[in-house]
Amino acid sequence: MDIYFAGSIRGGQSDVELYAELIELLNEYGTVLTEHVGTETVQEEETQAGMTDHDIHEQDLAWLRQADAVVAEVSTPSLGVGYELGRAVELGTPIHCLYRPEAEHDLSAMIRGCDDIEVTEYDQPTELSETLAEFLEAAESA
Amino acid sequence: MDIYFAGSIRGGQSDVELYAELIELLNEYGTVLTEHVGTETVQEEETQAGMTDHDIHEQDLAWLRQADAVVAEVSTPSLGVGYELGRAVELGTPIHCLYRPEAEHDLSAMIRGCDDIEVTEYDQPTELSETLAEFLEAAESA
Repeated sequence: MDIYFAGSIRGGQSDVELYAELIELLNEYGTVLTEHVGTETVQEEETQAGMTDHDIHEQDLAWLRQADAVVAEVSTPSLGVGYELGRAVELGTPIHCLYRPEAEHDLSAMIRGCDDIEVTEYDQPTELSETLAEFLEAAESA
Repeated sequence: MDIYFAGSIRGGQSDVELYAELIELLNEYGTVLTEHVGTETVQEEETQAGMTDHDIHEQDLAWLRQADAVVAEVSTPSLGVGYELGRAVELGTPIHCLYRPEAEHDLSAMIRGCDDIEVTEYDQPTELSETLAEFLEAAESA
């Protein structure tokens, strides 16, 4: 199955190592289309590849449309992640958000209050294996 | 015309006075459905009114569906604003984003690279009268 992982890039990359751990975990269940989100140098690499913001948008939207499931780390506020979640809701793709309660910012009511989005609070990625396995199995049979 | 103004709340309210100025400007052209976004006490007021995150999501989505145009201040990264923009793109509502280049965070490629979103960079709300008038006139006749 194809998994779209969403995490903050321009909104702040302080959680990038955590994203890499989550992507590694998700790779056990399927193909993560957006592995670059777990790389600190993602922006430089996109610039070096000559990608404009329009190219990035089109590539990410194509992956979002292709994905069987969306997993987002939402502890860092991010316009891009929020935008992807809004588009994914309209596409009807199963969505699971991961949030660390000790984060600086409270989670948006638009995410926590959305019936089409599951939210799990956690401290360490190691706690998430069972939750993600259950979510992805349900998404695969949806 | 009905205007949906979007700005960060839980992502950080450091621009709340700016949002109030922009809402005042927009009120010259129509009805801003989301005036509370320009109020520092918006979260306490929603709590006092007994609103859950689900209630807030449903109310904001109803306003978003009702709106003839969306104007968002996107200098502060926000999951809620991003989510609203993603939903508005799918709804086909005209969208105009306002961004201050001196902001701490670079604007998301998902916003700047989206063909369905106009972006204007500015320093002071007073610079925006003509831009917003043109955008809202076009939205009204769309």
